[in-house]
Amino acid sequence: MATETGLAARGVIPPLVTPLDEHGDVDRRSLERLVSFQLEAGVDGVFVGGSTGEIALLDGEQRRAVVEVAVGTVAGAVPVLAGAVATGTRPVIEHARQAARLGADAVVVTGPFYVQPHPDEIVTHFQRVRDALDVPVVAYDIPSAVGTRLTPEVVSTLAEARLAVAVKDSSGDIAAFREILRRTGPAFPALTGSELFADTALELGAAGVVPGLGNVDPHGFVRLHRAVADGDVRAARAEQERLARLFTITTVADRARIGVTAGAVGALKAALALRGVLDHPAANPPLLPLDESETRAVADLLTEQGLLGS
Amino acid sequence: MATETGLAARGVIPPLVTPLDEHGDVDRRSLERLVSFQLEAGVDGVFVGGSTGEIALLDGEQRRAVVEVAVGTVAGAVPVLAGAVATGTRPVIEHARQAARLGADAVVVTGPFYVQPHPDEIVTHFQRVRDALDVPVVAYDIPSAVGTRLTPEVVSTLAEARLAVAVKDSSGDIAAFREILRRTGPAFPALTGSELFADTALELGAAGVVPGLGNVDPHGFVRLHRAVADGDVRAARAEQERLARLFTITTVADRARIGVTAGAVGALKAALALRGVLDHPAANPPLLPLDESETRAVADLLTEQGLLGS
Amino acid sequence: MATETGLAARGVIPPLVTPLDEHGDVDRRSLERLVSFQLEAGVDGVFVGGSTGEIALLDGEQRRAVVEVAVGTVAGAVPVLAGAVATGTRPVIEHARQAARLGADAVVVTGPFYVQPHPDEIVTHFQRVRDALDVPVVAYDIPSAVGTRLTPEVVSTLAEARLAVAVKDSSGDIAAFREILRRTGPAFPALTGSELFADTALELGAAGVVPGLGNVDPHGFVRLHRAVADGDVRAARAEQERLARLFTITTVADRARIGVTAGAVGALKAALALRGVLDHPAANPPLLPLDESETRAVADLLTEQGLLGS
Amino acid sequence: MATETGLAARGVIPPLVTPLDEHGDVDRRSLERLVSFQLEAGVDGVFVGGSTGEIALLDGEQRRAVVEVAVGTVAGAVPVLAGAVATGTRPVIEHARQAARLGADAVVVTGPFYVQPHPDEIVTHFQRVRDALDVPVVAYDIPSAVGTRLTPEVVSTLAEARLAVAVKDSSGDIAAFREILRRTGPAFPALTGSELFADTALELGAAGVVPGLGNVDPHGFVRLHRAVADGDVRAARAEQERLARLFTITTVADRARIGVTAGAVGALKAALALRGVLDHPAANPPLLPLDESETRAVADLLTEQGLLGS
Repeated sequence: MATETGLAARGVIPPLVTPLDEHGDVDRRSLERLVSFQLEAGVDGVFVGGSTGEIALLDGEQRRAVVEVAVGTVAGAVPVLAGAVATGTRPVIEHARQAARLGADAVVVTGPFYVQPHPDEIVTHFQRVRDALDVPVVAYDIPSAVGTRLTPEVVSTLAEARLAVAVKDSSGDIAAFREILRRTGPAFPALTGSELFADTALELGAAGVVPGLGNVDPHGFVRLHRAVADGDVRAARAEQERLARLFTITTVADRARIGVTAGAVGALKAALALRGVLDHPAANPPLLPLDESETRAVADLLTEQGLLGS
Repeated sequence: MATETGLAARGVIPPLVTPLDEHGDVDRRSLERLVSFQLEAGVDGVFVGGSTGEIALLDGEQRRAVVEVAVGTVAGAVPVLAGAVATGTRPVIEHARQAARLGADAVVVTGPFYVQPHPDEIVTHFQRVRDALDVPVVAYDIPSAVGTRLTPEVVSTLAEARLAVAVKDSSGDIAAFREILRRTGPAFPALTGSELFADTALELGAAGVVPGLGNVDPHGFVRLHRAVADGDVRAARAEQERLARLFTITTVADRARIGVTAGAVGALKAALALRGVLDHPAANPPLLPLDESETRAVADLLTEQGLLGS
Repeated sequence: MATETGLAARGVIPPLVTPLDEHGDVDRRSLERLVSFQLEAGVDGVFVGGSTGEIALLDGEQRRAVVEVAVGTVAGAVPVLAGAVATGTRPVIEHARQAARLGADAVVVTGPFYVQPHPDEIVTHFQRVRDALDVPVVAYDIPSAVGTRLTPEVVSTLAEARLAVAVKDSSGDIAAFREILRRTGPAFPALTGSELFADTALELGAAGVVPGLGNVDPHGFVRLHRAVADGDVRAARAEQERLARLFTITTVADRARIGVTAGAVGALKAALALRGVLDHPAANPPLLPLDESETRAVADLLTEQGLLGS
Repeated sequence: MATETGLAARGVIPPLVTPLDEHGDVDRRSLERLVSFQLEAGVDGVFVGGSTGEIALLDGEQRRAVVEVAVGTVAGAVPVLAGAVATGTRPVIEHARQAARLGADAVVVTGPFYVQPHPDEIVTHFQRVRDALDVPVVAYDIPSAVGTRLTPEVVSTLAEARLAVAVKDSSGDIAAFREILRRTGPAFPALTGSELFADTALELGAAGVVPGLGNVDPHGFVRLHRAVADGDVRAARAEQERLARLFTITTVADRARIGVTAGAVGALKAALALRGVLDHPAANPPLLPLDESETRAVADLLTEQGLLGS
């Protein structure tokens, strides 16, 4: 059974992309550079194997590699969260145990999907997962991916029964997020997955942010987080507006040609390659790559924001 | 690369439930009994590790066990199809290779999920899967589980490029199914996953049926299939109506209490336990079990249909 | 209170488009020609003010005009059904009363929309509508437009309590349609709105078809209906396949440019203009028109089917 | 053509419920009392015939009555907004013209529904509506009711082309709301329909709030609005938390028994009847009423908040 003490789920915890080499395997050197880039920027944790990390597309070897490299490179400086995203309870436990063995400080778990669960079955899922593990569980609400919600009622049940130590909310539903904050209180950290209202979420009591865009501009999110902590609403707002502008890189891709996931993940990887952090911008199959003009649009936005030397 | 000759994807191919013992492991003896029960009823194939087989909830050991037992018990009498259902291309290939090594005659593969793919990315997914395998691929359209469709256009692309050797359609969309039949022609078997319009689908040209209810009453589906083959529309209709009535076992569970998947899979397992085929009706966590009155309702429907000795 | 005797809701009952003149008003002369064209083809009824008739886009004067012209032109030859489609009970009653006053033989009514009703509230809606009217009510299931279903359970409640005299099913869900047939029996006519499985629906017991494509090719649907009535499954299938091919006119429009409704209604109107039945192909605002190349694609399909002199 | 000068779409503008008498007609006296209650509380405008006002369920006479009474009772003290909600362009123009004739200061208009419009058709809709009217148009985004979004891109097109003078956002999507604020700027008032993040929306630049709960506790929203205007974030937050608690009256109804709309509107009306503002809590058919225990739960919450004398 997990002891939930010890996990500092707070601050800026970017969900890292999974760099790949020309063979489609995890590019360990690029991932090390990415982790170092994040640590130098002052992030408070890293999250590997999340949606941004293409968790749905990684095979067993890739899943292993990203945790290994992250744990090794971070070397205890900040917590390493690892996605244990799978359709059901038993596969989640398999993935979570491997992540724990490799040194992850916590695992991040969605409700079951592919199946259509009742809310009580979602709670049962977390109960079983928690009972099988020695590592803390962060509950992950991402309805766009799994098709069901972790409602505020479910999340507060998880919090009260100590089946999860924190929640990551990628629902985009600020009313529900506030309801979670209201029901669970400050002892249960609530993290927002939003790049677009990170400032607001933090001002309302979010313990931290898990922004995919943090891969590309961790300094921006660190500044944003600090501004809120300092009570400087104006600075936070300005930083947020800048990041919202930068976030448009994730929608430059032509949706008539490639999917939403490919466009967003591809843009983050393209930006990191342009910034010299990754060697290759490739994503896992079947995601199609950005084309040349889309990549140029990403570069232009980076340049505009001073993130690319001219 | 797969050679698609040799797979007879036709007739009645029930997607088998996954029997569990009191520890939650695969109950090999019950699964052997279930396979034998199916073969004695005259089915034309069996499909393990499908949605009805709780594929989303099985861990690696369970996935392995169901293929092993099915292949061993079937002993070449009919084709064994195995689900290689996973969120992305690489994990699908991992699962499919294991199933092939264990002797499955074909693997059944959905489009990617959790991610939001473009149709071209779905085709790419099947291209990559097919290139990596020596076993034929059956494309599986189940939008209620994966959230996207294999449109008739995508399916006909898969057929033309020989990326799949057949399609299993669980969309419930008969207009789209006919469009698939129209576009792909008789050389590309189209199987329906419907328990409720199996007769119609067969009359329209479906090569076979993959009915979850076939677990409980394979004889009924074998009779239905034969009636259509014999051109006896009236007998087919009568059998279909009887099966539609029997299918109401899958909706006796109270949806205010347990989920749709739990109610349907739980009813099939309860019915098989009542009929003496399975030792236990348990489903994998987090699915909650039928309660006593729901199980009684299943028993009553079986009795009404003469499937349970009084 | 309505007496439901006397409505023959059976056979081919096309949902007529609403022809407009250059000012956007109802083009009465074109509508008269369209009705005559239908009667000469041998249809068993006409339905004005349905979804195909742009009911959602018609103002009060237009709603009035279409019923007036249809009733006048039909002159008792066949029943005239009129859509009384509105968001709530009271507005439905307003529209239905006007249609009845103008001579409609029945009104066609959906469940409430914009609001989110409970199934019992849907039944209450039909109860109130029926109590307020002297004209029979046909229940209309079109979830793509109203967002909720008339489930088989709701429809059988309406049938048993005689709150509706028939149902028009545009759900595309053949399993539910069969469940309705099973629950309500032959005394309660069930009409399918499908162009793509009209043959199947009729063979399964549908009392009739309400095909938008019937505007363009009523002769085809009359032949299809007769073939099924004669038990000539082969002829029915051949006719259905031809009509399915013709139905592709409704999807030639570029969805990146205009909406689904505009593309489908626009194609029917363009085809009727090409065939000389309508003077203008215009649809109501805000629907955008087909462009030249889309109209040419419609013409080509008509020519291919022998519906346009060369 | 409308002149958009002159509409002060800002501050607290509650969307009023439509009080009914025992015959189901508009209870003019209760509506007068409701309007007076609002004015005394210091609201900045009233909105009749919105979703909360059961616009979808009102017949022509009721629509007329609510505007008449509101305009008469307000007597110019604040702007009166009137919903011109209908499925299509022409019916919207009909409703809007009547509202304008009766003295409404602006009309509130959604995108077309029942049909499935392209974004360009939504813009065309507002263009046509605006061209036909002499009264300003407020664009209304309420996807839960109409099924499509007014995207930030569409809203900014409406703003730039002066096709609307303001937007009411009931999407619940704060990221999109901020994008609207970013794109349109302060000259184009954006109002939030949220009861649950009114404070946040105002702090981010919303010009006002349109809260259904404002019917019951206008004083609370007036205090909230003033607190934000005064820069007193803490007071705003406390008031917001109190209102969020009070808002739970809208979810006390049993959803297994009545619909979401019935439960929410019924609770607001029950609360107003309990507070002595309305004579009857009845809603239009087909909405079913709260039962006794649900009404008691509403009363308890009012008492807890000091809104009901003990």
